[in-house]
Amino acid sequence: MNPVPRILAFDIFGTVVDWHGSIVREVSERHPQIDANAFALAWRAGYQPAMARVRSGELGWTRIDELHRLILDELLLRFGLDHLGEAQRQHLNHIWHRLDAWPDSVAGLTRLKSKHLICTLSNGNIGLLTDMAKRAGLPWDCILSAEVFRAYKPDPRTYLGVAQTFDAAPAEVMLVAAHQDDLAAARACGLMTAYIERPLEFGAGQPKDVSPDPANTLHARDLLHLADQLGC
Amino acid sequence: MNPVPRILAFDIFGTVVDWHGSIVREVSERHPQIDANAFALAWRAGYQPAMARVRSGELGWTRIDELHRLILDELLLRFGLDHLGEAQRQHLNHIWHRLDAWPDSVAGLTRLKSKHLICTLSNGNIGLLTDMAKRAGLPWDCILSAEVFRAYKPDPRTYLGVAQTFDAAPAEVMLVAAHQDDLAAARACGLMTAYIERPLEFGAGQPKDVSPDPANTLHARDLLHLADQLGC
Repeated sequence: MNPVPRILAFDIFGTVVDWHGSIVREVSERHPQIDANAFALAWRAGYQPAMARVRSGELGWTRIDELHRLILDELLLRFGLDHLGEAQRQHLNHIWHRLDAWPDSVAGLTRLKSKHLICTLSNGNIGLLTDMAKRAGLPWDCILSAEVFRAYKPDPRTYLGVAQTFDAAPAEVMLVAAHQDDLAAARACGLMTAYIERPLEFGAGQPKDVSPDPANTLHARDLLHLADQLGC
Repeated sequence: MNPVPRILAFDIFGTVVDWHGSIVREVSERHPQIDANAFALAWRAGYQPAMARVRSGELGWTRIDELHRLILDELLLRFGLDHLGEAQRQHLNHIWHRLDAWPDSVAGLTRLKSKHLICTLSNGNIGLLTDMAKRAGLPWDCILSAEVFRAYKPDPRTYLGVAQTFDAAPAEVMLVAAHQDDLAAARACGLMTAYIERPLEFGAGQPKDVSPDPANTLHARDLLHLADQLGC
């Protein structure tokens, strides 16, 4: 029997919301001439290199909204959309504020919230996460972000920052994520970890390996299955 | 006709929750030998001087939980409660996490949330505000705190920080508070302001002047009356 976490901290992109499907749906409707699947994957692929520029100190502290925009401006050239004006670029960049939740997310979070403090721990900025939660109905107790800690995951200051924010020991916090590298970094800081299978995170054309890692505290198909396992 | 604020940022202690009544109720039940009204007023009176020690640089960045505890340890001596042990002191200090909302707060916020982004802007720390919201059912879209901005109100970084967090102009944000000095500082930063009458903030023995200041954008009896005025 595992100890019960007091706090559940959730990764967002891919874990709680479907970035790939949401971007593909909106882009293929507005810009039917481009390959929306390739566009979504390329935008997301720019994300880690952009954060690496902040981690290395090449860029000062920069929010994800700004990093998404840097990547987007390059992509628009590559995909032949560089005729888009400033207002259209801003609107498109805010697609990350309008991502749809996976079908189980709202019901799963609502059950988990009944027995745990539930918060975000995302590299997304606070404004992005707030707009997303309001639109999708995600019932967070608190929105925490890399922006609060001025450091991006997998920096230990983010995982330990959640514990410190709530005066908790690291072992009282469980990171919930669909990415083994994020979970491994949290585990190295003493957090419990729950892996969520999201086999379609990158779309149906690029199924993801979702096999269990026994190092995680829990392994769940989705957030409802996590609620089952935590007795919520 | 005033412009409509996109974001409503709420002061908490006294504006949304009844710190005086909550402390008096709990302290008079647990420690009937002391003057709970005087105890509550003395604790709150220690708050501005304690924050001043942080603002002046005498103390490094210190959360309200820690400041409340510094004040409490002195008060326990003064009120003859210095026999309390560490666990009891911690529990008592967390009374600020357990404050009751004013009777109109949950219904008022729920209405206001339907048309506005609603967030806290309190000198209380994030963990305190999260525990309070979860217990009292306060339906925030986002919890912002002096802790996020590493500065206490009335520092301009707090008011302007709300606007920056949501990529808003200061004039798109309205501070809602029961304290004219807080509102005046927000106004100096370009925010709209709404004054909430809380005549019993300091208890029935010390009624507060709640007369209108025409410099405020709005003046409301309570949060339901504010929702009426904003058409929510």
